[in-house]
Amino acid sequence: MSAPFDHVAVIGLGLLGGSIGLALAEALPAARTTGYDRDPATRARAAERGLVGTVCASAAEAVAGADLVIFCVPPGAMGAAATEIAGAVNPGAVISDVGSCKVSVAEALGAALPTNPIIPAHPVAGTENSGPDAGFASLFRNRWCIITPPADADPALVARLTALWEALGARVELMEAAHHDRVLAVTSHLPHLIAYTIVGTASDLEEVTQSEVIKYSAGGFRDFTRIAASDPTMWRDVFLANKDAVLEMLQRFSEDLTSLQRAIRWGDGDTLFELFSRTRAIRRGIIEQGQDDARPDFGRSDHKS
Amino acid sequence: MSAPFDHVAVIGLGLLGGSIGLALAEALPAARTTGYDRDPATRARAAERGLVGTVCASAAEAVAGADLVIFCVPPGAMGAAATEIAGAVNPGAVISDVGSCKVSVAEALGAALPTNPIIPAHPVAGTENSGPDAGFASLFRNRWCIITPPADADPALVARLTALWEALGARVELMEAAHHDRVLAVTSHLPHLIAYTIVGTASDLEEVTQSEVIKYSAGGFRDFTRIAASDPTMWRDVFLANKDAVLEMLQRFSEDLTSLQRAIRWGDGDTLFELFSRTRAIRRGIIEQGQDDARPDFGRSDHKS
Repeated sequence: MSAPFDHVAVIGLGLLGGSIGLALAEALPAARTTGYDRDPATRARAAERGLVGTVCASAAEAVAGADLVIFCVPPGAMGAAATEIAGAVNPGAVISDVGSCKVSVAEALGAALPTNPIIPAHPVAGTENSGPDAGFASLFRNRWCIITPPADADPALVARLTALWEALGARVELMEAAHHDRVLAVTSHLPHLIAYTIVGTASDLEEVTQSEVIKYSAGGFRDFTRIAASDPTMWRDVFLANKDAVLEMLQRFSEDLTSLQRAIRWGDGDTLFELFSRTRAIRRGIIEQGQDDARPDFGRSDHKS
Repeated sequence: MSAPFDHVAVIGLGLLGGSIGLALAEALPAARTTGYDRDPATRARAAERGLVGTVCASAAEAVAGADLVIFCVPPGAMGAAATEIAGAVNPGAVISDVGSCKVSVAEALGAALPTNPIIPAHPVAGTENSGPDAGFASLFRNRWCIITPPADADPALVARLTALWEALGARVELMEAAHHDRVLAVTSHLPHLIAYTIVGTASDLEEVTQSEVIKYSAGGFRDFTRIAASDPTMWRDVFLANKDAVLEMLQRFSEDLTSLQRAIRWGDGDTLFELFSRTRAIRRGIIEQGQDDARPDFGRSDHKS
């Protein structure tokens, strides 16, 4: 397969950037890959693991000659990272990213690189791990990648970026940036906020000790702790960058929770039962569409030990 | 190993009851097991799978001659199930259960069987599946089982029940019933309530479709849908039976969430970052103590396909 891009520069070599580099090496070995991370320790480890073909000492060096640059840094760092390459990047190079909010990131990239074609993207994939040891080549397999081209984007460039993500194993969907931000507010941002909150609430109790919370976490709590172990910098940036959509979803969630609280207080079992029955259908849809492991308990290994 | 009980009767042959029967057959083959479920289809399937040695046509028949009866029915059904065996059970037979709330269940069992020794227990283990096909022998392995003996319980009987749960692979902890209910309110009941709520909120949106919620669930949402697929009857009963502790934890959670909402609204990144960093330690504790799968994403299989 001929690569849709000849030279891909990856800025930021954590979970996402590293996985892109490793996946490109497997799927499109003809494409040249270069990379940069502002943390010297991450660059050293990235070179050891071979996350990209060449780990460069500066962002400018990494993007020199590239026809695609993918920013894999937290949303709040996109603008500064793009500014760093402003003098060095080819005028025709496509600028993309993997950020979890698209309106604000597109603005930041556009402000820093006003003449390059900017086509933001968001692979809906990840794990709770971060850093240069976290990436792996199959991260994007069978996952959706949402591309949010601006209205005036060149369809040929969108098609090439689509081909690249499909080569990495992803299924691509095109969407308006603002709609993306509302969809992800509910499928990703709100779940993370709630998981962080409940883990914080549990660790602040006086009467129930932290050691008890850990010991008896298999009753449900442990599921939340996985998400609440995600990268703090990235998630801080996500909530600040997608503020309006997150606040809107949070308001709806709080109303629904208050209504259940009232049902519990007044012993209204029917309201509880009705909701608890309804929510099973969504799980079934997710399993049927291959978006989760169908085995009980996600197929956790601890029952087999 | 000589069995701590000669004849164990299991009332309710779903996930928990079935797993107890299967685990007993493996760990304590000398013990006789009988079982009953009020649903004829469940009884038929239980007999096919051999969940217990003998599936009986009535609860009275199942408990005849038993020296231990374990109720594995939803919390709200405990009282009625215990009343059904009142004339048939041996006067000295130990009465236990697996309910997720202990104060109310102990009261219900005590009211129905005032002369039998009652020693409630709660294995902190389960999956999102329910019914006679859901059980498996290793469910309790490396999980905690909390026994909540009343103040006047015979220590010899508590020791025998402890030995039984240890034989099934569990680690046993003794606790006061009221404290158990507060601990589980935070490690199990609140997480379930929140998971049910967010899945409900997501499915009620107008602008974001249900199909989009399912498609992009890998961003975090899918974790919540697993818990929200749990048995609706059981969970309705849990919230009604452990009302006070759940409402107390819910109040704390809502306050914490409101404070994060305020931080997002005012762009206070430091507050967000501080919490998001703090919550990682709890995850580490859970992994170190063997209470969850250490692999990224719970070791989900979908990256390997």
